[in-house]
Amino acid sequence: MTFRATHAVRVGYVDTDRAGVVHHSTYLRYLEQARVEYLRERGVDYRRFELEEKKALPVVRVALAYRAPARFDDALVVSTWVGHASRAKVRFDSEVRRGAELLLTGEITLACVVMPEGRICSMPEEVIAACGGEHAS
Amino acid sequence: MTFRATHAVRVGYVDTDRAGVVHHSTYLRYLEQARVEYLRERGVDYRRFELEEKKALPVVRVALAYRAPARFDDALVVSTWVGHASRAKVRFDSEVRRGAELLLTGEITLACVVMPEGRICSMPEEVIAACGGEHAS
Amino acid sequence: MTFRATHAVRVGYVDTDRAGVVHHSTYLRYLEQARVEYLRERGVDYRRFELEEKKALPVVRVALAYRAPARFDDALVVSTWVGHASRAKVRFDSEVRRGAELLLTGEITLACVVMPEGRICSMPEEVIAACGGEHAS
Amino acid sequence: MTFRATHAVRVGYVDTDRAGVVHHSTYLRYLEQARVEYLRERGVDYRRFELEEKKALPVVRVALAYRAPARFDDALVVSTWVGHASRAKVRFDSEVRRGAELLLTGEITLACVVMPEGRICSMPEEVIAACGGEHAS
Repeated sequence: MTFRATHAVRVGYVDTDRAGVVHHSTYLRYLEQARVEYLRERGVDYRRFELEEKKALPVVRVALAYRAPARFDDALVVSTWVGHASRAKVRFDSEVRRGAELLLTGEITLACVVMPEGRICSMPEEVIAACGGEHAS
Repeated sequence: MTFRATHAVRVGYVDTDRAGVVHHSTYLRYLEQARVEYLRERGVDYRRFELEEKKALPVVRVALAYRAPARFDDALVVSTWVGHASRAKVRFDSEVRRGAELLLTGEITLACVVMPEGRICSMPEEVIAACGGEHAS
Repeated sequence: MTFRATHAVRVGYVDTDRAGVVHHSTYLRYLEQARVEYLRERGVDYRRFELEEKKALPVVRVALAYRAPARFDDALVVSTWVGHASRAKVRFDSEVRRGAELLLTGEITLACVVMPEGRICSMPEEVIAACGGEHAS
Repeated sequence: MTFRATHAVRVGYVDTDRAGVVHHSTYLRYLEQARVEYLRERGVDYRRFELEEKKALPVVRVALAYRAPARFDDALVVSTWVGHASRAKVRFDSEVRRGAELLLTGEITLACVVMPEGRICSMPEEVIAACGGEHAS
């Protein structure tokens, strides 16, 4: 069973643009917070991880498909799970819904780097464990 | 020959995050402005287009690959061209470079909708023409 | 007794800048959402207000004083009350705290305009009532 | 004679909100970049300053007055000068105009801190000099 974290979002006024809908860049903020909450629920405090491990998980790939627009003050739910995890990368998959309606699907791939140099390194054990990596190819 | 528009960007302080690099969401702002400038150079004033045609070109798909980080005050150049254009969709492809170094590649796909309803419609003739649609499938 | 609304905020990664703290512009987003929640608790659904009344409450003045920085993943509380209300303007005052520590004080003044023209008009009765304007000087 | 730096801004789509105008928080981004350009014109490379001096100039106070809205694709000019400079603080004053029309006035006050601790320190000589501090109280 794949673990799914759900993260509630209330659409802010600043999140919208002159077309009257949520700007396409705003969803990256929603999905980022959803990943932080996913990790917290799986036992990884991402702030502590960065500070103590001197590592970070930068985004290396983004794929988003927009199905329907969200609007100001909508109550959205971001559902997030790990679509793929390896020693090199973890891919978080998300769906954004308003009630039953699917508004967006996203795949965000993270690598792991040593800070502050930014040199690529292996995904740490605690991240692999939190992401169910034992089953990953 | 494919037309390419180039758009210069100076990285702002607000564009960065606590990792000391440009946040992954910021590039969507850079690429959006690059598309507006692409259209302007090809004879389409996008503001006038929205106001007079009562149509808009919403983003329906985003694919970004991050190669290397940009930093505060970097002088970047966004190169943009049309990768694919049809009656239904136009895909703008972009590269972001700092000097010769490639930092990001992106593909942003737009549809056309009638405003304010948001109903999908055919890509207007002037957009097709600006995007070199005569060669599009 | 002045009514105070409290709004909880979790600091996101994107909210920070290369100095490792929350960017000074980010607080305007926090305070804006706090005002929306203030109005909701006082019986005014701001989305409905804009759509049905064809009016909006644009920000006409901002005053912020930064006392101490917030950081990624901090749990903040925004406390908001009406500092002044008249037929012409409403001023929302806010404090942002992390636990007992005061990080920011802000005063955001709103006017009322008829949309879409943007012509200044009197503050509607329901807004005045929600803001306790009967006691305002 | 007070030195004034001018910084040109093209309003982006993402800069707007559902009211069809530039969101009030966006101007803090415009004014921040205008300050960076002011300092550059006066001989201070702010990126180098942060990296070499291990200091930063955080915003400690913001005061903005909105006179008229800006809209998508407007060509704006931000004019910036030093309104007050001392050993403790520098206040940058800005006007945002669209042609002759004044849209916004702003006063942004900066302190100086030692990084990464964030401890308040005196404004460095090079900043004082760039800000015309010889005349400051």
